[in-house]
Amino acid sequence: MSSPVLPYKALIKLQRTSTTPVYLQIANRLIQLMHEGLLQPGAALPSSREMAALLQVHRKTIVAAYEELMAQDWIVSEERKAVMVSPDLPQTKPRSFGNKVQPSTYTLTTGFDFNHMSLPLTSMSNAGSHRLIINDGFPDARIAPIDALMKAYQRLYRLPSMQRNIIYGHLAGALSLRKELASFLHASRGVQCTAQHILVTRGAQMALFVAAQIILKPGDTVIVGEPNYGMANMVFTNCGAKLLPVPVDENGIDVDRIEAICKKKVPKLLYIIPHHHHPTTVTLSPQRRMQLLQLIRQYNIAVIEDDYDYDFHYNSSPVLPLASASHNGNVIYIGSLTKSLTTTMKVGYMVAPENFIDTALQWRRLIDIRGDNLLEEALATLFQSGVMQQHLKKSLKLYHQRRDYFCALLHEHLRDVIDFTVPAGGMATWATIYKKYSLPALAAKASAQGLFINDGKFYNTGSVNYNALRMGFASLNEKEMEEAIKVLRSVFGLK
Amino acid sequence: MSSPVLPYKALIKLQRTSTTPVYLQIANRLIQLMHEGLLQPGAALPSSREMAALLQVHRKTIVAAYEELMAQDWIVSEERKAVMVSPDLPQTKPRSFGNKVQPSTYTLTTGFDFNHMSLPLTSMSNAGSHRLIINDGFPDARIAPIDALMKAYQRLYRLPSMQRNIIYGHLAGALSLRKELASFLHASRGVQCTAQHILVTRGAQMALFVAAQIILKPGDTVIVGEPNYGMANMVFTNCGAKLLPVPVDENGIDVDRIEAICKKKVPKLLYIIPHHHHPTTVTLSPQRRMQLLQLIRQYNIAVIEDDYDYDFHYNSSPVLPLASASHNGNVIYIGSLTKSLTTTMKVGYMVAPENFIDTALQWRRLIDIRGDNLLEEALATLFQSGVMQQHLKKSLKLYHQRRDYFCALLHEHLRDVIDFTVPAGGMATWATIYKKYSLPALAAKASAQGLFINDGKFYNTGSVNYNALRMGFASLNEKEMEEAIKVLRSVFGLK
Repeated sequence: MSSPVLPYKALIKLQRTSTTPVYLQIANRLIQLMHEGLLQPGAALPSSREMAALLQVHRKTIVAAYEELMAQDWIVSEERKAVMVSPDLPQTKPRSFGNKVQPSTYTLTTGFDFNHMSLPLTSMSNAGSHRLIINDGFPDARIAPIDALMKAYQRLYRLPSMQRNIIYGHLAGALSLRKELASFLHASRGVQCTAQHILVTRGAQMALFVAAQIILKPGDTVIVGEPNYGMANMVFTNCGAKLLPVPVDENGIDVDRIEAICKKKVPKLLYIIPHHHHPTTVTLSPQRRMQLLQLIRQYNIAVIEDDYDYDFHYNSSPVLPLASASHNGNVIYIGSLTKSLTTTMKVGYMVAPENFIDTALQWRRLIDIRGDNLLEEALATLFQSGVMQQHLKKSLKLYHQRRDYFCALLHEHLRDVIDFTVPAGGMATWATIYKKYSLPALAAKASAQGLFINDGKFYNTGSVNYNALRMGFASLNEKEMEEAIKVLRSVFGLK
Repeated sequence: MSSPVLPYKALIKLQRTSTTPVYLQIANRLIQLMHEGLLQPGAALPSSREMAALLQVHRKTIVAAYEELMAQDWIVSEERKAVMVSPDLPQTKPRSFGNKVQPSTYTLTTGFDFNHMSLPLTSMSNAGSHRLIINDGFPDARIAPIDALMKAYQRLYRLPSMQRNIIYGHLAGALSLRKELASFLHASRGVQCTAQHILVTRGAQMALFVAAQIILKPGDTVIVGEPNYGMANMVFTNCGAKLLPVPVDENGIDVDRIEAICKKKVPKLLYIIPHHHHPTTVTLSPQRRMQLLQLIRQYNIAVIEDDYDYDFHYNSSPVLPLASASHNGNVIYIGSLTKSLTTTMKVGYMVAPENFIDTALQWRRLIDIRGDNLLEEALATLFQSGVMQQHLKKSLKLYHQRRDYFCALLHEHLRDVIDFTVPAGGMATWATIYKKYSLPALAAKASAQGLFINDGKFYNTGSVNYNALRMGFASLNEKEMEEAIKVLRSVFGLK
């Protein structure tokens, strides 16, 4: 069978600096030529000597390439030297190489839709390119006990017992961390639970996602605050649930409105952020909290209590979470250690009845098998040695000072253009921009001066344009705050 | 208003060793008593002096506790000394304390069901308690370049630019890692893609979960191997899809059967593990692979190609993945770095058309926001410096030796009781136990002698009982293998 002699020299570009051996590069490229139909079943290949001359490589390299192809059944050798493409390969049509510039074979042809997810994806992704960032309320990574954590991690990594343990670590998370969390939650906020009631997740978001999958079916109703944490709304909507927004005022979510809804038709789920509500930073008042607990017991509503920010409260100790009270096992409590460490290292948890946790484990392993058990073990040692508690104390004090300093600066320099209330806790202030200014325009101007601020679109979860943003103070030192405020004054056109 | 004097001494147990200050313990406990209705609105509390005597603490401690409660609006003080529970609090019914042993307020009352998830959850969770473990095929964590990785992590953590970057790191994963992956995938397996086609996930499982959510709707059909990776079947079933099992033989999945299915009704999705199929370890032959590519193009089937094990192939270089060929953008390619590092540190990836990746980002942030960008940056430096490539070479050589040694041991000592084929790659051998032995019974006996082996239930994804297990050799040194085989001989009753 005669075959055209292909321009092998042009078709087989060798990368001498690649970590892939040259013989493999040649073999892989020849396989691609077979795919693409340029080398058809039964086509003859140049002898190893000829091919070596064409490609300017040693003949042994071609012999190795051909041996590789034979081992994989791509080519056959009839005599000693003549090799040809295996006649058993199915025929494919030749394709042009003309437009084979940088690849985009990837163009999806199967249909899918995701229209209900409308929160902007990219508005924050360019934040890192700025000299200064006022973030949404994240901790200062510079003070996190990362060295102690890494040290513990490396020490544990070397223990033979740990090597055995981690391969099949518990799906709910390292037992040592769940035990530490159980006593921490009891001591710090009166939540009575044991390790069996805890699922450690990659972050509060995963706990929220999993809890929603378990509780909600398409058509179910969910009471949420208006405004609300946008990512929570997206999770519920994605489950096919209908949102019932209830206003949030300075005392938290309006519980009378919740009661009115329950009287008509009991919703399936209530989502609540009791401390430093996202985005508004308000805390649910003790009165409303008690009233809400009665409603939960009376109407048997499932509740997701997202208490991501409990550990950072400055004015007094925070009101205990709903989960610490009697709630007929209806409250799924969600928290996070991320806020205590750094945003990059996400560790969250869900506290729930045992049968709920059992189901959550099934979901969690579908999504992610399990977390980093070794990191969890290392975190547990930080609790055991008190490093974590000391770090929390230190952070609380520092962020308290930073809140005061930042709010003083806001009051002194920007009170004529923004409204804000000093938050009782958390890592951010909710600042409403006076209507005559457009927040997205301000954000663009600030960006040009090297300062990133949120353009506010993320908070407009309903049809309302709040023209407001969260201004995170926890991760900025005083000098950085002063610089940021200076840029903001200029952006607002203040002298 | 007269109130009964409560047995405060019994009700308020103080933990002197707790990290929570005593005054806060008292305040929190009093709040709980209000919740539980033992302290009703308007009820008088003992004076600070009386309470201090009752609880045997300093009076200042009680004063601090009462101040805390006043700050939170739980109690009011009418005169200088008399304090009472705020009359504004809603009334609650008293609850008995009799059975308040260790907590189980958590008893789920809202309904949910998860019946379709039937894979055993716990059969592996006790593995860590054994002296020896034959796992399912995991890398040897002892040889992973963890120190280099941690060093890079700590160095990057200190860079101010990184501190800014990580807070709002890219949702698809660190750009540097995606770039390194794109060139690694091109050089090692001919997959032509750029960073824009890659989503970094917590592990291959998350990539699989997300891809399935995008592609599948309830009622859709999915072709899977029989047997198949159980976690994949669970993901598809959980989407409401119907599985169409197609037999896997020594050349991989039966492509003629796939064609027959397509001729009747084109399925929505094909799930395939081309290299070292899980659980059977077989590799799809080049002929079948070409035939399959033609079917994919002809019928426009969406494909998830789960190539978790590509980097570990011993006999020849592995057949290129489907994703490296022309596939009309229908192949979603999934891989993992976990197998190259350690099971605890899960980093996987999905390669797909850009519009698919955009949708996958939406799902990924619902589940987990984003990964550990700093870890991803650190991994990228290991690729840049060649540490990763060297580690892969070293692992490949070591696991090749271990495969040979382990299979030789199996042949020498257990050939009369098990069937197996030497796998061309991967980290495990698929061993079928002779029918007269029950694998679960053998596993129990081995466990009693300190050796963990899989009891095989995990692989029985259909109605078939394979009485077979994966025997991972990669994580065992020669001495450990010899010990394990010795225990197995004894378990089988061989002299």
